[in-house]
Amino acid sequence: MTFDTLSSDQIQALLDEQTAAYETLKASGLKLDLTRGKPSPAQLDLSNELLSMPGADFADAAGTDTRNYGGLTGLTELREIFAPIMQVPVEQVVAGDNASLAMMHDNLVFALFHGVADSEQPWGVEEAVKFICPVPGYDRHFALLEEYGIEMLPVDLLDDGPDVAAVRELVKDPAVKGMWLVPTYSNPTGAVVSEAVAAELAALETAAPDFRIFWDNAYAVHHLTEQHTKTADILGLCSASGHPNRPVIFASTSKVTFAGSGVCFLGSSADNIEWYLKHLAKRTIGPDKVNQLRHARFLKSVDGVHALMDGHREILAPKFQAVVDILNARLGEHGVASWTEPKGGYFVSLDVVDGTASRVIQLAREAGVAMTPAGAAFPYGDDPRDRNIRIAPSYPSPEELAAAIDVLATCVLIAACEQALAQ
Amino acid sequence: MTFDTLSSDQIQALLDEQTAAYETLKASGLKLDLTRGKPSPAQLDLSNELLSMPGADFADAAGTDTRNYGGLTGLTELREIFAPIMQVPVEQVVAGDNASLAMMHDNLVFALFHGVADSEQPWGVEEAVKFICPVPGYDRHFALLEEYGIEMLPVDLLDDGPDVAAVRELVKDPAVKGMWLVPTYSNPTGAVVSEAVAAELAALETAAPDFRIFWDNAYAVHHLTEQHTKTADILGLCSASGHPNRPVIFASTSKVTFAGSGVCFLGSSADNIEWYLKHLAKRTIGPDKVNQLRHARFLKSVDGVHALMDGHREILAPKFQAVVDILNARLGEHGVASWTEPKGGYFVSLDVVDGTASRVIQLAREAGVAMTPAGAAFPYGDDPRDRNIRIAPSYPSPEELAAAIDVLATCVLIAACEQALAQ
Repeated sequence: MTFDTLSSDQIQALLDEQTAAYETLKASGLKLDLTRGKPSPAQLDLSNELLSMPGADFADAAGTDTRNYGGLTGLTELREIFAPIMQVPVEQVVAGDNASLAMMHDNLVFALFHGVADSEQPWGVEEAVKFICPVPGYDRHFALLEEYGIEMLPVDLLDDGPDVAAVRELVKDPAVKGMWLVPTYSNPTGAVVSEAVAAELAALETAAPDFRIFWDNAYAVHHLTEQHTKTADILGLCSASGHPNRPVIFASTSKVTFAGSGVCFLGSSADNIEWYLKHLAKRTIGPDKVNQLRHARFLKSVDGVHALMDGHREILAPKFQAVVDILNARLGEHGVASWTEPKGGYFVSLDVVDGTASRVIQLAREAGVAMTPAGAAFPYGDDPRDRNIRIAPSYPSPEELAAAIDVLATCVLIAACEQALAQ
Repeated sequence: MTFDTLSSDQIQALLDEQTAAYETLKASGLKLDLTRGKPSPAQLDLSNELLSMPGADFADAAGTDTRNYGGLTGLTELREIFAPIMQVPVEQVVAGDNASLAMMHDNLVFALFHGVADSEQPWGVEEAVKFICPVPGYDRHFALLEEYGIEMLPVDLLDDGPDVAAVRELVKDPAVKGMWLVPTYSNPTGAVVSEAVAAELAALETAAPDFRIFWDNAYAVHHLTEQHTKTADILGLCSASGHPNRPVIFASTSKVTFAGSGVCFLGSSADNIEWYLKHLAKRTIGPDKVNQLRHARFLKSVDGVHALMDGHREILAPKFQAVVDILNARLGEHGVASWTEPKGGYFVSLDVVDGTASRVIQLAREAGVAMTPAGAAFPYGDDPRDRNIRIAPSYPSPEELAAAIDVLATCVLIAACEQALAQ
């Protein structure tokens, strides 16, 4: 992407114009934050009933006193709500505490120390352990792998999922033990793994007998349109292909109810669940069942979850539309950037002129707009083309968001002009 | 311990009498459980206000929206309540989720993968890692070590803490990286580590520069009498001895508020806290702050904690007294058992005739009384003298408890008679 039709003088004129605009914006003392995918207060308000629940009745449907110890798998009635969303039988769903990231962490730790269900030995005693990382992807996934010395192998995330041909080559290496995937409305591009791609990943012949897909369905029900994209049934596909233990499915209510005080879920094969619970039992006596009871009573059913998510959509969809509208209005004519128009999830992924993402983010920061650091969506923070910027529209007010995206567009143009003139 | 003054005929007569009593008890169809230190419903009721908290006001004292992401160290106002109980500056206290066991687990995992603040390398790459385990002790502590292949070295837990001479010998081995301690009202004996023993442990010269004391102060405020035993200030003692990073202090509200839905705490040196948070940040974005807000508002202050614990004491103390009274009445004259009379905590530790604990527990089980398995309070479940039985009086009703201890006493006598006659 570049200014194909502009002369140097025209580019210089554009740079002057944008720089003047930038200086004005900078002088206005903005303090805006587009870094993290945090729900806004208005979204959190949708679940305020939780704040005084469960009330006097603390028994779950089975009559268990939720205040006491025990119940490692979590409350049945809450698992029943999320099992169909995860497309996993309820017996194979574990409800945990407030962070699916923690479940992912623990799965890695248990695998490194003990190996998984099909391992010949603990992953940690292998010479190397590698994970395939579709990019751009979720920075916290990559940070977990880095923390535990697991080598990351990027592959391109296309519109319908990861580049399967690239994955197919990589899994010939027995050190490749797994891959990350956010199957629905991926972070940050909004890509959805198609049924066909999911089937190919399920059927892949991998050199490692204990290859795992960490299927982080963080945005399973987080639609931005009335079209409810259905996630591929990865457990069914893997079972049908003879790899029942391949997928480990994660979900959470962090962006359904309260981001800090929700419930997370893990679903997988019966063997994997047995393995997970065996190790989890050493770490804890059980999850916060009172919070699970709150959630079960508040959400009520799958339909209850969808109704709540409709409320989120009403708040979020106009924000995403505003981002896209401003980017179109400010950048559309220049051909120096492209961006996603996601049907769900929490992010817009913006690609700017190669080699300018860091400069754009620096300019934005200096004008008071905090963006996720350049490269954050890539393993080791290294975006080889230095072009990807993740936009998180959920938290700011509509006015703040519009102001921030306007600044960002100005910075994109400035950086593009600077680079074009330097060549 | 044995029947010093009885003839074989007298022992046989006692056995016949007790066996007849046992058969009657067995026929009565009891179903009683003395296995785990669970609070009773009446104890949990003391905290029922939590069930409808925090209500509409979800902001913490600093104005933070507790419903959203973030705040890895936990709510300041809750840490302020527990910092003095833990004898750690509030800046060096982290409030977590519902299980201090999980914090202990994560400390071990982080140490194995990364080493601790004073380590030359990760513990996991050492040829061997060993922990000193005062016995009898807490089975879940030992299970954690076993899970991660850490070798356990038992030392006797005396009335004033672990046998320091034995500890002093063991720490000459650089593979000895740490030790467990429940300093106040230990599980199961109720022993309290004296200031003198704590000072010796703090000052010990250890071959490992990164030796850690896992100071699990689970029963810090769990007094059974009006005497409030003060825990030794292990952080102060270690700092004064030039080993500021030695202690890692754990506490929780599991037996203060709700056992399944409380808050846990970690306190240590500034270096250790920095180390812990650095690794914790990879695992989670933050703890359940709404639950922490509930706890801060409900407990209010250190005095609030003590007032609540007075309520627990009123319920628990008569149960402990009943256990001791029945054991005295049934076993006192025979000299075949000894037991603790703890001033706090959750357990009575019963020592029976050497070699008969397993038999006692088997007999009890067959009569409908579930006890913690013999050996549970020892590493690898191995009580070398097969004599220790842990009694958890908290959960059953007073009537159930009395019935269960009566059965237990009968079983102790039967097993003692059987053994005496077999010799």
